[in-house]
Amino acid sequence: MSWQAIGIFDSGVGGLTVLREIIRKLPQEDTVYFGDTARVPYGTKSPETVTRYAVEIAGFLLKRDIKLLVVACNTASAVALSALKRQLSIPVVGVIEPGARRAVEVTRSGRIGVIGTAGTIRSSAYTRAIKRLEPRAEVLTQACPLFVPLAEEGWTDNLVARLTAQSYLKDLKEAAVDTLVLGCTHYPLLKPLISEVMGPGVTLVDSAEETARTVAKILGDKKLLRPEAEKGNHHYYVSDIPAGFIRVGNRFLGGRLGDVYQVSLDDENGDSR
Amino acid sequence: MSWQAIGIFDSGVGGLTVLREIIRKLPQEDTVYFGDTARVPYGTKSPETVTRYAVEIAGFLLKRDIKLLVVACNTASAVALSALKRQLSIPVVGVIEPGARRAVEVTRSGRIGVIGTAGTIRSSAYTRAIKRLEPRAEVLTQACPLFVPLAEEGWTDNLVARLTAQSYLKDLKEAAVDTLVLGCTHYPLLKPLISEVMGPGVTLVDSAEETARTVAKILGDKKLLRPEAEKGNHHYYVSDIPAGFIRVGNRFLGGRLGDVYQVSLDDENGDSR
Repeated sequence: MSWQAIGIFDSGVGGLTVLREIIRKLPQEDTVYFGDTARVPYGTKSPETVTRYAVEIAGFLLKRDIKLLVVACNTASAVALSALKRQLSIPVVGVIEPGARRAVEVTRSGRIGVIGTAGTIRSSAYTRAIKRLEPRAEVLTQACPLFVPLAEEGWTDNLVARLTAQSYLKDLKEAAVDTLVLGCTHYPLLKPLISEVMGPGVTLVDSAEETARTVAKILGDKKLLRPEAEKGNHHYYVSDIPAGFIRVGNRFLGGRLGDVYQVSLDDENGDSR
Repeated sequence: MSWQAIGIFDSGVGGLTVLREIIRKLPQEDTVYFGDTARVPYGTKSPETVTRYAVEIAGFLLKRDIKLLVVACNTASAVALSALKRQLSIPVVGVIEPGARRAVEVTRSGRIGVIGTAGTIRSSAYTRAIKRLEPRAEVLTQACPLFVPLAEEGWTDNLVARLTAQSYLKDLKEAAVDTLVLGCTHYPLLKPLISEVMGPGVTLVDSAEETARTVAKILGDKKLLRPEAEKGNHHYYVSDIPAGFIRVGNRFLGGRLGDVYQVSLDDENGDSR
């Protein structure tokens, strides 16, 4: 058993959908969330830069005494996971591998769709992860750049969102995928709409849910879970003014955020900039 | 007369709509554009941070021998213009003042609408600039967060864009503004649609056009214009991988971008990070 917290980070607010699933699955655990709101988005930045940011943030969270690190950001999971695993002595869980594994488990036809930001789709990270597990799988991908701003605006079931989803998902629907991976932490907010547009024959794989399941399994296997009777505390840190994070965050978390603190990683590391 | 170039910067690709108007108005001038794509967006960052970035970029452009600096970014114009004017010996032009001045010139009823990103609207920069020029003006504002991703996606005249515009502009239309300031460098791409939704009685003020007009006037007054028979060269620098900038940029510029070079301001300033 370990009383330490679970650390989790994202480039911004999206990772709160992953945190929500972790809290739902493991309500007894303390969590420490870091949203790198000063440097969001990661998707347009080079792998070297994203890896440097991820290592910095891991350092910050380790000082807060965590027993496991969740990389709740698709870009950082795609480019920085191996560097983090190499450097850290605690388990590190990304969001891509759990979603890919689940997709391979549930598909019957072997035709799997993946949607995500332009950066995630361009990286082919899900395609590679799925093919590693099931080389015969056919993976069709689609970037959906407007889904993130729609989710942040709270437009998740109006006509604009519906028409946007119909436009983005048209090709995947016609290609008759039977499984669709929501490869972006923002997309769980659009899940009912995406499910409706894709129709009842298509299983949606929510990377947030699968990541939480993986976290529970690792902590269970390693006997690091807190007693089930406990109720965890949740702390939030961001790298820029918290106002925007708080405004959007409650919707992403599906409940009230606690206090959100702004920290400068530069100061943290003794860097004067 | 001066053969030096006009320097222009933005947090990303949006400032290219301002560059387009400058090239249209002053085709004889050389230009140097800097898009801070590694650190976009500025709207969520603190004024101190944005000012530091703006001063860094101004330093980079000054080394490329410019005669005037255009701050083609609403956030940087709102928070960093006075610092830049204090530190630089060349003229500095922002995008807010020209748009505000034009709005005051063209309004008949004194009811002026302003649309922009959430950050620009929250800053009240346009409202203050308009009120400084005409204290009796009534200024109504509306944040339109989805307009930027729609413009970048190239969805500028489909049904999604139309419904989004109708939703955002509904209150301004009902309030019967007779002038609407496009207070974001991305919005000129949506101008035909916005004009159609607002109706023929509303004059749109394009900050990009007004900024170009101001640049031409200052250089003309100071006798710094190149001979009209000349044809200017245009150089582009960005702070992260140029791929995304190039993909979206041609549409924003309304023509072919030349070569785009990636530079690191940190290296430029002898900083190892």
